[in-house]
Amino acid sequence: MYHLNLTLDPAGKKPMYEQLYRFLADEIRSGVIGSGERLPSKRALCAQLGVSRSTVEAACDLLLAEGYAVSRPRSGFFAADVLTQTAPTEQPARKPAPPEPVSREEDLFSTSAVDVSQFPYASWAKLYREVIYHSPALLQRGGAQGEPELQQALARLLSEYRSVRCDPEQIVVGSGLETLLSQLITLFGPKTVYALEDPGYPFLERTLRARERAIRYIPLDGDGMDAAALEASHADVAYLTPSHQFPMGVTMPASRRSRLLRWAEAGDRWIIEDDYDSEFRYGGRPLSSMQGMDRAERVIYTGTFSRSLAPSIRLAFMVLPHALLERFRAVFGREQTTVSRYEQTVMARFLDEGFYSRYLRRVGLLYARRRDALLEALRGIDGVTVSGAGGGIHFLLTNPRWTEAELIEKAAARGLRLAGLSSLCRTVPALASTLIVGYGGLPTARIPEIAQKLREAWAENGQGRP
Amino acid sequence: MYHLNLTLDPAGKKPMYEQLYRFLADEIRSGVIGSGERLPSKRALCAQLGVSRSTVEAACDLLLAEGYAVSRPRSGFFAADVLTQTAPTEQPARKPAPPEPVSREEDLFSTSAVDVSQFPYASWAKLYREVIYHSPALLQRGGAQGEPELQQALARLLSEYRSVRCDPEQIVVGSGLETLLSQLITLFGPKTVYALEDPGYPFLERTLRARERAIRYIPLDGDGMDAAALEASHADVAYLTPSHQFPMGVTMPASRRSRLLRWAEAGDRWIIEDDYDSEFRYGGRPLSSMQGMDRAERVIYTGTFSRSLAPSIRLAFMVLPHALLERFRAVFGREQTTVSRYEQTVMARFLDEGFYSRYLRRVGLLYARRRDALLEALRGIDGVTVSGAGGGIHFLLTNPRWTEAELIEKAAARGLRLAGLSSLCRTVPALASTLIVGYGGLPTARIPEIAQKLREAWAENGQGRP
Repeated sequence: MYHLNLTLDPAGKKPMYEQLYRFLADEIRSGVIGSGERLPSKRALCAQLGVSRSTVEAACDLLLAEGYAVSRPRSGFFAADVLTQTAPTEQPARKPAPPEPVSREEDLFSTSAVDVSQFPYASWAKLYREVIYHSPALLQRGGAQGEPELQQALARLLSEYRSVRCDPEQIVVGSGLETLLSQLITLFGPKTVYALEDPGYPFLERTLRARERAIRYIPLDGDGMDAAALEASHADVAYLTPSHQFPMGVTMPASRRSRLLRWAEAGDRWIIEDDYDSEFRYGGRPLSSMQGMDRAERVIYTGTFSRSLAPSIRLAFMVLPHALLERFRAVFGREQTTVSRYEQTVMARFLDEGFYSRYLRRVGLLYARRRDALLEALRGIDGVTVSGAGGGIHFLLTNPRWTEAELIEKAAARGLRLAGLSSLCRTVPALASTLIVGYGGLPTARIPEIAQKLREAWAENGQGRP
Repeated sequence: MYHLNLTLDPAGKKPMYEQLYRFLADEIRSGVIGSGERLPSKRALCAQLGVSRSTVEAACDLLLAEGYAVSRPRSGFFAADVLTQTAPTEQPARKPAPPEPVSREEDLFSTSAVDVSQFPYASWAKLYREVIYHSPALLQRGGAQGEPELQQALARLLSEYRSVRCDPEQIVVGSGLETLLSQLITLFGPKTVYALEDPGYPFLERTLRARERAIRYIPLDGDGMDAAALEASHADVAYLTPSHQFPMGVTMPASRRSRLLRWAEAGDRWIIEDDYDSEFRYGGRPLSSMQGMDRAERVIYTGTFSRSLAPSIRLAFMVLPHALLERFRAVFGREQTTVSRYEQTVMARFLDEGFYSRYLRRVGLLYARRRDALLEALRGIDGVTVSGAGGGIHFLLTNPRWTEAELIEKAAARGLRLAGLSSLCRTVPALASTLIVGYGGLPTARIPEIAQKLREAWAENGQGRP
């Protein structure tokens, strides 16, 4: 009988059931466990590895589902004949990666998922066709900042909905926020020190690290970024998500906004306002943008359509203060903007002809109903509390009966992938036993079934805690 | 009578006739020269400023054309009533920029202009409509490198036409070469030293300077980048345009390619092969790519559709060696690619269904005919010789009868904007009296008329030379 030579890492990046699954799948694929050989029993695996039965069961379910093992009633699990199966297709050089085990479920709670079921295809495709047929001139080279038609449409939209104050010529369009932030990093130069929210959205951090920029992590309080800590940080640029902080869901009140604006005015400092999720607000009036409160031109307002419209639409924008606009033109003025002129023109008409605001109302109602249904369903699970649900399409879920890792693993064992808050905390301790729940990609009809799975997953008391 | 307080700068960025035009237009707009006031005579301007009559005439023509001056027979030129004219439209805050004087002509010889008259709109729009209506899944988030369908189509295309050897998964798609080169700069890290062709394409240089990277300028010889100079340079990355060097038009022979590949293999060094203009080749077989000769995976192959298809199509690609691919995935693996998934899918089908290769044949024939007609017409101008015309859509024109500045100014005085070679030379002296002539945007039918203008412009012998 096969002897298992494995130690699982409870602090590893992958949940333990997945570590176990991958290990066994590799052993079977490589022939260490021969075809038809009996696998250790679930009880033996629990005992040897010191893990719960649900962990072992999740791993075994995956082995069965992916065809690495077969089950014989009353006899246990046996390795499948995977060598013979893969031989005919001949993929020698590269060892195939094991299939992602919970891909069936993984996007349900993803904070980057978005519901596109209401997307107005017909109107979008019609605009596209019109623009392509009727605007051959758009095949030629475009400007560095974007189409004037789109700049104007964006300036109107931002003025009306977000009280942003700008000339259209201050707007720069780019293929995603990443592209625009990367340009900003270049404009700020290598000596600039960046203040990031802790916990916060990890994209900018990754780019700053790749480009070897200095980072200060600033903790949050109930109002958002801690002003005193920022003031003491010697940072030059603060990156903020004031409308609906990611991941805490805090909306920054006007008093904190004023104080942070004073910080920026007091030196040659800048605030990047990522107006993340400002489009969705449940109850209460949305605050206007920080840019609209800024009298000293220290705020760079940024936004994107990838959450409010569809993730694959690579169109984001930033509003540059005049001093930065000059720098931008000196450095990037001779390049073309990174978005197709056709797509820009389609978006301009989509905004101007009211498709976008109608769509936002429709999808906003959908998210509001889904959020209400989900909060209601979660209320039925013992121990669960929720915070940061006043806007956007994610919130925090806390369940002190288990550790964060346990909450994740127990949900994963039932095919539900959830992310813990701690992975986003850099210098501050995470709120204990807390998960980040995105519901943009969660089908409303499945909420009762999914809540039931979570209830079962987290049903027992925290007896397994260390 | 108005007294002119102006000194023209013969070495200035703008040609002298334009300096004069702008100065007078400003004086009229601001009221320094009152409405109806007589302007200095052409003869007086020539004498006072020490410039040729053609310079003064070009400036006066523009003033008339733009409505700043009126001409009265046998009396001379008088300032027009521009203050009254602009008053009703009320544009107070911002002083309007003077109109670009030769914009009517400026793109005729631009090396970035492309003929899109043959672009297959109907097919492109039809593909777009199909893809948008039938692929709602493409609204969701895409991968970091691009759509697999496009990666495969590109791998087939590059293998067939350019002998590039790669797996589709080595291909990264991005919204323009600028975006991809910027990612490469991040992957290489801040200590990397870049070798650039001198003279060369200025884009990468601008980005490297903005990001404070070290640059070594390597001179060219008749075979392209000087290998000995590169070897002595301590550079880590060489950026090459071997198919049709910009601006010299040299095609690098296989022997030089081998030697540069050995340079890269001998250290942890890289070659960025910008396969610029490889699509257009007149007479002679095109050499295959350097990437296809590379056995050590030291070449990053890059290409774009902005010249071969249309400038506004923001879709470029690079083929990463496996070692760089791993770095790419570690740094950018969690971002989305910068090109719309719809546009990627449309492009994949455009390639797969043969639209692209048919289009290339059609536009290649068009460029070949235009080049022949242009070379034939230029042959009729005394003193003119041409080099680097074997491929691409630009060549060098030399006319030793005048200096480079004189050639440019004399052509500009007839409304033809031409670029000099010297602006692209960093450490090497430019070939004397040499211009860069792009013909991608030059209407074939206008070649006789334009050649006639050049003949007139450069007709006199170089008597005005210092």
